[in-house]
Amino acid sequence: MLARSLGELARLVGGDLEGDPSLEIRGFASLESAGPGDLSFVAADRHLSAARLSAAAALIAPPGFDLGGRPAIRVAQPYTAIAAILPVFFPQPVVAPGVHPTAYVADSARISPSATVSAFAVVGERSIVGDVAVLHPHVFVGPDCQVGEGNILHPHVVLRDHVALGRRVIVHPGSVLGADGFGYVFDGQAHRKIPQVGRVVVEDDVEIGSNVTVDRATLGETVIGRGTKIDNLVQIGHNTVVGPDAIIVAQAGIAGSCRIGRGVVLAGQAGIADHVTVGDGAQIGSQAGVHRDVPAGAGMIGTPAMAGGEGLRALAAIGRLPELLRDLRALSRRMAALEQRLEMGRGPAGRG
Amino acid sequence: MLARSLGELARLVGGDLEGDPSLEIRGFASLESAGPGDLSFVAADRHLSAARLSAAAALIAPPGFDLGGRPAIRVAQPYTAIAAILPVFFPQPVVAPGVHPTAYVADSARISPSATVSAFAVVGERSIVGDVAVLHPHVFVGPDCQVGEGNILHPHVVLRDHVALGRRVIVHPGSVLGADGFGYVFDGQAHRKIPQVGRVVVEDDVEIGSNVTVDRATLGETVIGRGTKIDNLVQIGHNTVVGPDAIIVAQAGIAGSCRIGRGVVLAGQAGIADHVTVGDGAQIGSQAGVHRDVPAGAGMIGTPAMAGGEGLRALAAIGRLPELLRDLRALSRRMAALEQRLEMGRGPAGRG
Amino acid sequence: MLARSLGELARLVGGDLEGDPSLEIRGFASLESAGPGDLSFVAADRHLSAARLSAAAALIAPPGFDLGGRPAIRVAQPYTAIAAILPVFFPQPVVAPGVHPTAYVADSARISPSATVSAFAVVGERSIVGDVAVLHPHVFVGPDCQVGEGNILHPHVVLRDHVALGRRVIVHPGSVLGADGFGYVFDGQAHRKIPQVGRVVVEDDVEIGSNVTVDRATLGETVIGRGTKIDNLVQIGHNTVVGPDAIIVAQAGIAGSCRIGRGVVLAGQAGIADHVTVGDGAQIGSQAGVHRDVPAGAGMIGTPAMAGGEGLRALAAIGRLPELLRDLRALSRRMAALEQRLEMGRGPAGRG
Repeated sequence: MLARSLGELARLVGGDLEGDPSLEIRGFASLESAGPGDLSFVAADRHLSAARLSAAAALIAPPGFDLGGRPAIRVAQPYTAIAAILPVFFPQPVVAPGVHPTAYVADSARISPSATVSAFAVVGERSIVGDVAVLHPHVFVGPDCQVGEGNILHPHVVLRDHVALGRRVIVHPGSVLGADGFGYVFDGQAHRKIPQVGRVVVEDDVEIGSNVTVDRATLGETVIGRGTKIDNLVQIGHNTVVGPDAIIVAQAGIAGSCRIGRGVVLAGQAGIADHVTVGDGAQIGSQAGVHRDVPAGAGMIGTPAMAGGEGLRALAAIGRLPELLRDLRALSRRMAALEQRLEMGRGPAGRG
Repeated sequence: MLARSLGELARLVGGDLEGDPSLEIRGFASLESAGPGDLSFVAADRHLSAARLSAAAALIAPPGFDLGGRPAIRVAQPYTAIAAILPVFFPQPVVAPGVHPTAYVADSARISPSATVSAFAVVGERSIVGDVAVLHPHVFVGPDCQVGEGNILHPHVVLRDHVALGRRVIVHPGSVLGADGFGYVFDGQAHRKIPQVGRVVVEDDVEIGSNVTVDRATLGETVIGRGTKIDNLVQIGHNTVVGPDAIIVAQAGIAGSCRIGRGVVLAGQAGIADHVTVGDGAQIGSQAGVHRDVPAGAGMIGTPAMAGGEGLRALAAIGRLPELLRDLRALSRRMAALEQRLEMGRGPAGRG
Repeated sequence: MLARSLGELARLVGGDLEGDPSLEIRGFASLESAGPGDLSFVAADRHLSAARLSAAAALIAPPGFDLGGRPAIRVAQPYTAIAAILPVFFPQPVVAPGVHPTAYVADSARISPSATVSAFAVVGERSIVGDVAVLHPHVFVGPDCQVGEGNILHPHVVLRDHVALGRRVIVHPGSVLGADGFGYVFDGQAHRKIPQVGRVVVEDDVEIGSNVTVDRATLGETVIGRGTKIDNLVQIGHNTVVGPDAIIVAQAGIAGSCRIGRGVVLAGQAGIADHVTVGDGAQIGSQAGVHRDVPAGAGMIGTPAMAGGEGLRALAAIGRLPELLRDLRALSRRMAALEQRLEMGRGPAGRG
């Protein structure tokens, strides 16, 4: 059983302690499921009533939230504190280093002695697996790849040849890096394949979700920049450069030869057409369809994508279209009536 | 060669027999491809002409459909009858129980003697595989999982740790259950990962398509409720609860912390934003984008999603926008003409 | 080091040579990254200034592009030439034929002596693997499949039972062919599964991207027609027939029982509802939602999909909706003012 004192946890996150520092905390849970030995948290005031009802022994909360005197750790950013505390109560299992007897490693591959290559994993010719990297079962690393220090490749990840991963990269199950980009030329008879001979480069601290696809470049490199986080089922086309520090939410798609800037947020199911540049810090709404360059810092929504405030008004107006059509028809009738009346008024038989 | 008498098949589905009960049926096929020994079906009257042209020996059909005297089994719900008859003519291969010599099963895992663990499958520490469950080749079951009685995990399915599947769950190839949810906090320098320490619970009779992703909860549980059916390439975010008896069509995405009610239908490529509640029995149209709670029984379409009838009118009106703009401009010109004329009419130089 | 003379390369692509035919070319690269020994290319005149700045030794270019006297190979279709030249400088690794000792091949399967079955691949009962076909590591081929001559199945591809692939088919990592279609009937209590007993047929020269899903037919066949190219994360529903020579871009989805004609282009994230026919040569825009049949040659955009020119005007008009609403309100006020004035004009206390 893991246990920490509340004072120890407050020091860990640099927070202000309210209550008995020796209070023993034995777990961390949500407000609803926390028991008497647990620490929980409240980050938004709409959850304050749930916080009062919670059985938690203590709460992480921003300064000023009224917790009715319950023991607390006060921090400006509760989620930053949570990120630090969760590993205390939910330690990740330690993976033993070494190559599993069922793994298949090419003779010319180099595996760090502190790395783990699990059951049925494959490492191709001339590939390098760095220190404390973990290849989970069924991972396929093709020839000429670099798996960096501290990488975690979850089960069934596929790196085709010449994929280079930086340090502390995490790839979740089923993702495919380095498959051929989608390039053909129609010669009048058939779509002929343009060989895709470039590669994929993933920089430090990138995390890639499950069943994501990142295609190799036609020539040159497809790049996922440092610190970028990619959610599940995302498509990144050939020769595209993303990040650093971008956030790409689930099922978004970026076509080929795009430039997605620093800190860009692409919400779920959004799409970026090929050869588009999205400037640093831009935010693209869910399901938006972007076909033109987006300036730095812009917020875009809708299809075709429109700038934030205007776009919100335009999308809201769609719901009012039937009413608008009715109003226009009514106005047209009133106009016709007026015109007719004025026409009559000046005619010989006018009743006006 | 499998063969059944028409009378026997009528009894199997509880239908009314028309024609010779001893008629021998040797297969089941669509109207177009059925041969003289085959049973076929017609479920909608628009297919009646194809039914008359079919070479099928007999037909499953609702009462009242005029089949020109052909032998028939009359049932109110043809598809329910078909679901019962197909396994007769297309029996699924029996899978022999046992652990394949190439599989890798952790010492502390418990495998039912009636279960099947196929080639290159992995079962992690402390995991349990229930009676008559089938793990196809390359399935990865992480530590501390429960694979329930009668589960079928198709090739390349991945369950990370602490995933619990109920009874009769089917998961198609390449789906990933229990990968980390997409949770980060920006600390001013970088996106820091919030550890995802919850789990995934899948209840009885759920079926999950190919290359689906269901993320584990941050804390607590992501739940796929009893009898829910999920199509291919669907995303289910962390802490979301779906069902029971929901239908989620291909490429739909549900973000984190959603509540998707009983019997909800989410059509293809629809998206639900995080923290949204969709009430029981609501139907969400294809490609709809839902950002607000949806009441029980509602039908929603479009982005942003609008209630059914109104939404249909609004979406249809988009196609009339160019015409509407022209009408508005014309009306504006007529207005200006009228205003000018009245202005002149009351002026000193009026010609009226 | 690979090297070719410029004259030799010009002959290879049937182009017109400008400059010294003995000029030695040692690589092929983009304009930006080409070095002094490299061949590069320019296909659009907006890249001419980059071409002039490039360090490339020679360029592939259309006739008439002013390259300032640099050695060149002139061709009408640069991309066709590139498709021919890339394999010269980036030869694909030769895969040795044979069955890897860790592969698992059923006794009744037949593997051509010139085929390759790699580590941890599985080939099921009665399946056939044709000449020079390559099954990469972790490929799963179920029972009763046909893997055609020259097929390349990349790592982690899954073919369930009864999938038939033609010649020269390429399937990228993680794609799943032949999983069950999404078919249920609600019996008042639960969604009951309709067994999916048909199969998948993929014709010659098809290429399928990564993490794609192509479902087997309920009865009969799902067909990917000759020469069709499918990008990543695409969904093809049961009983649908696509192609020949169609182009299906990433994350597009085609529901069940559709007919997608010859040479159709379906752009990224587009969706086709079930039972829809898309005529030969039609082009469907990105994120479009198609619910009705599309005539041959049509261009459709938007949701619901509208014909090209009209659709473009309609989508552009969405951005003008707020302005349109303002205009309509202003017109309405002017109308009311006119009406009031005319009313007063004819009343007893008229000031007119």
